Amino acid sequence: MSKTMLAVVKPEAAPGAEVREVQVPAFGRRDVLVKVKMASICGTDLHIYNWDRWAQNRIHPPLIPGHEFCGEVSAFGDEVTSVKEGDFVSAEMHVACGKCLQCRTGDTHICQNVKIIGVDADGAFAEYVVIPETNIWKLDPAIPPEYASILDPLGNAVHTVLAGEIAAKSVAITGCGPIGLFAIAVAKAVGATTVFAIEVNEHRRKIAREMKADWVLDPSKEDASAIVMEKTGGLGVDVVLEMAGHPDSIRTAFDIVRRGGRISLLGLTSKPISLNFSEDIIFKGITVQGINGRRMYQTWYQMTALLKAGKLDLHPVITDRMPMTEFSKAMDRLKTGEASKILVYPNGVK
Amino acid sequence: MSKTMLAVVKPEAAPGAEVREVQVPAFGRRDVLVKVKMASICGTDLHIYNWDRWAQNRIHPPLIPGHEFCGEVSAFGDEVTSVKEGDFVSAEMHVACGKCLQCRTGDTHICQNVKIIGVDADGAFAEYVVIPETNIWKLDPAIPPEYASILDPLGNAVHTVLAGEIAAKSVAITGCGPIGLFAIAVAKAVGATTVFAIEVNEHRRKIAREMKADWVLDPSKEDASAIVMEKTGGLGVDVVLEMAGHPDSIRTAFDIVRRGGRISLLGLTSKPISLNFSEDIIFKGITVQGINGRRMYQTWYQMTALLKAGKLDLHPVITDRMPMTEFSKAMDRLKTGEASKILVYPNGVK
Amino acid sequence: MSKTMLAVVKPEAAPGAEVREVQVPAFGRRDVLVKVKMASICGTDLHIYNWDRWAQNRIHPPLIPGHEFCGEVSAFGDEVTSVKEGDFVSAEMHVACGKCLQCRTGDTHICQNVKIIGVDADGAFAEYVVIPETNIWKLDPAIPPEYASILDPLGNAVHTVLAGEIAAKSVAITGCGPIGLFAIAVAKAVGATTVFAIEVNEHRRKIAREMKADWVLDPSKEDASAIVMEKTGGLGVDVVLEMAGHPDSIRTAFDIVRRGGRISLLGLTSKPISLNFSEDIIFKGITVQGINGRRMYQTWYQMTALLKAGKLDLHPVITDRMPMTEFSKAMDRLKTGEASKILVYPNGVK
Amino acid sequence: MSKTMLAVVKPEAAPGAEVREVQVPAFGRRDVLVKVKMASICGTDLHIYNWDRWAQNRIHPPLIPGHEFCGEVSAFGDEVTSVKEGDFVSAEMHVACGKCLQCRTGDTHICQNVKIIGVDADGAFAEYVVIPETNIWKLDPAIPPEYASILDPLGNAVHTVLAGEIAAKSVAITGCGPIGLFAIAVAKAVGATTVFAIEVNEHRRKIAREMKADWVLDPSKEDASAIVMEKTGGLGVDVVLEMAGHPDSIRTAFDIVRRGGRISLLGLTSKPISLNFSEDIIFKGITVQGINGRRMYQTWYQMTALLKAGKLDLHPVITDRMPMTEFSKAMDRLKTGEASKILVYPNGVK
Repeated sequence: MSKTMLAVVKPEAAPGAEVREVQVPAFGRRDVLVKVKMASICGTDLHIYNWDRWAQNRIHPPLIPGHEFCGEVSAFGDEVTSVKEGDFVSAEMHVACGKCLQCRTGDTHICQNVKIIGVDADGAFAEYVVIPETNIWKLDPAIPPEYASILDPLGNAVHTVLAGEIAAKSVAITGCGPIGLFAIAVAKAVGATTVFAIEVNEHRRKIAREMKADWVLDPSKEDASAIVMEKTGGLGVDVVLEMAGHPDSIRTAFDIVRRGGRISLLGLTSKPISLNFSEDIIFKGITVQGINGRRMYQTWYQMTALLKAGKLDLHPVITDRMPMTEFSKAMDRLKTGEASKILVYPNGVK
Repeated sequence: MSKTMLAVVKPEAAPGAEVREVQVPAFGRRDVLVKVKMASICGTDLHIYNWDRWAQNRIHPPLIPGHEFCGEVSAFGDEVTSVKEGDFVSAEMHVACGKCLQCRTGDTHICQNVKIIGVDADGAFAEYVVIPETNIWKLDPAIPPEYASILDPLGNAVHTVLAGEIAAKSVAITGCGPIGLFAIAVAKAVGATTVFAIEVNEHRRKIAREMKADWVLDPSKEDASAIVMEKTGGLGVDVVLEMAGHPDSIRTAFDIVRRGGRISLLGLTSKPISLNFSEDIIFKGITVQGINGRRMYQTWYQMTALLKAGKLDLHPVITDRMPMTEFSKAMDRLKTGEASKILVYPNGVK
Repeated sequence: MSKTMLAVVKPEAAPGAEVREVQVPAFGRRDVLVKVKMASICGTDLHIYNWDRWAQNRIHPPLIPGHEFCGEVSAFGDEVTSVKEGDFVSAEMHVACGKCLQCRTGDTHICQNVKIIGVDADGAFAEYVVIPETNIWKLDPAIPPEYASILDPLGNAVHTVLAGEIAAKSVAITGCGPIGLFAIAVAKAVGATTVFAIEVNEHRRKIAREMKADWVLDPSKEDASAIVMEKTGGLGVDVVLEMAGHPDSIRTAFDIVRRGGRISLLGLTSKPISLNFSEDIIFKGITVQGINGRRMYQTWYQMTALLKAGKLDLHPVITDRMPMTEFSKAMDRLKTGEASKILVYPNGVK
Repeated sequence: MSKTMLAVVKPEAAPGAEVREVQVPAFGRRDVLVKVKMASICGTDLHIYNWDRWAQNRIHPPLIPGHEFCGEVSAFGDEVTSVKEGDFVSAEMHVACGKCLQCRTGDTHICQNVKIIGVDADGAFAEYVVIPETNIWKLDPAIPPEYASILDPLGNAVHTVLAGEIAAKSVAITGCGPIGLFAIAVAKAVGATTVFAIEVNEHRRKIAREMKADWVLDPSKEDASAIVMEKTGGLGVDVVLEMAGHPDSIRTAFDIVRRGGRISLLGLTSKPISLNFSEDIIFKGITVQGINGRRMYQTWYQMTALLKAGKLDLHPVITDRMPMTEFSKAMDRLKTGEASKILVYPNGVK
């Protein structure tokens, strides 16, 4: 095995990134070295690339980003017992401390001391990535590699959809980035009876239709709230999955949720949100949940089971496939708003 | 409107029933008189017909049986406000007292003082049936009448499937009478990823396959428990829906449920069941639930939503359609084990 | 029985109210006429008295206010079956329609068409009040009348406390009006291990101490959030019950709830509330609930059981007892901020 | 530190045990060596001592039994980060694999590959015991050592009581061994309003009274079921905690649970149990749960919080204190049925 590898590197505290030769990372006794087959790009990677305020506060260059991927086990430490060379794997990139209250009471996904591989430590936009054994997720070879590389955002969608009752419910998804689009497929697979997708970007609306949303609405051109209310007989929807983080979409979420309904918030906000608590929450008796990451590892079992059963067709969301060497081009493509999920291949698109 | 009508009558405390002319029933201020379009036959009706021990203890002839049906509102009392003549309706036939602890805390389906129309009062095997307004379920004309007439047993299936987590779970259904068969379709519609159907009767197994069970097993010829364990990687299934009430199928249920899993019991037993509580329940940390009727009216909303969304194909379960005048022939047909759900038409099959 | 009675009447759309002779109200077939023994005053009654913006929009004078009371059954309609003359009763004053989705799925307390007796119809500040049989709550004579007259706000507290897990949890209550004060006692009775009471009014803080809150904090003089964080080892509390509706107390609620914790909102707000959804809700993975009224009738069973078991000492909250004729004086007393729960007696204090 | 220590040893596959000098156990990189301060005796230890059928199948001598204890950290492996010498600790003795479905989805307490220290590996009836760091539970010095040594069975009680709703509920506990007795205190501390304790042994009934059970019944002399039904107004209790494992007490459990109630089964059975599923479970719509061990580590947080808040008085249950050298005498004492929880001290009673 070569001692060097190609990787996307954020070399310094400034916009941009470069693809260059670096050392293959060392791994510890309980770690697994994975040869990356393909990785996918998240909005977070664009934040890091653009070096926005969030990135400036969180990221310590040099860093190899990338937290969505699949690959094969290449080597592992001497205390690792659950994998063998060649195993097809993905990984949960939130490395939890295992010792805080949240970790010890089943809420590992909101660990007080979490470190994210690809954000706080070198990630998967590289030929190799190191993952603690605890975080490795072994995959059935029946699962298509393209799906295996997007389990992280698919997991966000599964976690959000299944954070409350969903069977036989009406659902609105506000914001159709990749996670919102995945959520359409997941919600329908687990028994949501009507899915409204609300999104201003026309490329995303087109994919939302391909994901079989029952109603796809453009809030920039039509009164999405009024339409949802009309189609639900004036009741509003049982569940809103808020995936945009924009003040307008959050306003819509509270307007269209029915009395006693649920709003699950995943979309991160960059501005303060103003609500009328009495009218928006208390009189309606609703429940509002903050959703973060994926349940470790309940969500992983759930999404694997759904994928193995063939219940999810996610292909429309994967719009672009590029060699990793064209990372900057991928960033540009993402900025156009035309791409949804972009796959990058460390060893070329195959 | 004629003052008499045709009805199936259990005239006295003895086997059999007859179709004869009776008075159209009177109704009270808060009641609805429904013109029956079609009704369907339940195993309970066969117990009443055969006059078995259960029937001897429960039924007070003369009685018009029948508790699964749909029809049109024909007339109603002067305090009724929620229907109008011609409305397409079905009904929950468990008439709850509304005053006991269970009724007042959301468990109306296990009311201490419940009366069942078609068991404790005259039912739907007749041209007309009287239903309290509270129990009327108005139907969207989009729902096919054949489905509208089987909402009672479909509701049993929906109630059982949704009595715990089901999305992304493996499920075994022991016993494929009509409710078990419906449960296959419901479980798949709400995200169960693998459904095992276990049934000794070959006609029922054939329908189970048409309902798209992933595995259909004959415990009289193969080791169903061993096969389930093998197909689940030695774990067992997440959920068992026990719909047979037979000691063998109950034994299978406890053998194949995984640690931490759920067994929902719907199938009524006529014999004592013996268990090793330590091995069967405690060490495995499982949950066992008794399921009765349908949640009033959560289950009704759920099944209506699933039907309107086209998520359930139930046609394979409806095997026979007969004029109500041939009720005894329908009973004979049911005894052969070849029929599943039989529809009867008070005014002839149309 | 006399045909007239004394009542507090809001005669017209203006501030104030008067005590005067009116007709004893007529009742229908399913109604119960209750002779009021004592009633208690809610903040809502002060809004009505003051004729503030909320009152101007909601109230249609003339109106007899009052929705917290106990009394004895005096007479009832001919379809009433569950009470007899002289029965000791209180009542749920939210009269639900029984026909909407929420009513039919166990969420009666957020009925779409609710009418509140004492707000939308004549209430209990009178010698007699009419209550539908469905809403009557029969009381064990073992329950002290003073407690029986405050079941409405006690029910708010019980509903809020029990809206999620509470046993062995740390709890902060922001705002110690009567409901917040009751919530201290309820939380401790059902296993909360540490209760923080946060309140600016010194009279209320004094009562909070008598209710046995573990820590009573004055946010106008000390850094309540910092103290809560320190006392919880930097974690924050498991549960916040927000009972003030003030922007500052809501800010505190989100600051002190731990990751994965619950905030139950009961206190009504009159101003928009601004939050940083990412930091305040999403990253922390918290659940925020709107709480309205009391569960019908689960909350009533719960509070009755707690009272009968002697688990709640509520006396410190009842600060004043007055004849109903001194209603305006009671309003003045409430405005001083020195009174907590005031009882009024239609027939004089006994 | 000495290289040898005193320990209770089961030397061979036969009844009995002896106290003798053995090697202080070696520990690994992630292990903690604890100096035992006191330990307590469980019924399981008596099974091992008596060498009954269960013991013959499970135990591989030589073995040091003992799985309830507290002590001080004496030394630890080089990868241990969360303790320091002298820390006051107890431990969860179920060592879970961390890799099975149950472990990875929050049900560690029913791990498929669990090993129990004191059953499958050397335990705490010794001067020193080795515990993996993951299983160490650090204790606040405020917790009395006698309570710290009984956290294992107290945890069983807390797990059982809190396995479903309990606040404002009526509860029956069938079987008042130490766990049943603890359950009385726990149930009352978390808001159970009426607690029935049902037990044939008069010594245990006496303690049940000291634990403040509301009703203590002797089913060998009175009709316990009839009394429970009468005291609950004919309804039955909301919750039954079955802690005896005897066919009679299980029969009572199913007889007295109300419609829609919960039975949580903890008491292990040695004989098959026969039920009428239709009458006992299905028509009543009850939930039956198997309870095993303690939730890792939710139960530990819960019981620690309850103890720190002073909500549990457990002293009546601790009936005997003996030096470890008198282990056989302790066994004899247990057999009399007069002792409840016996503490043993490796270094003499202090």
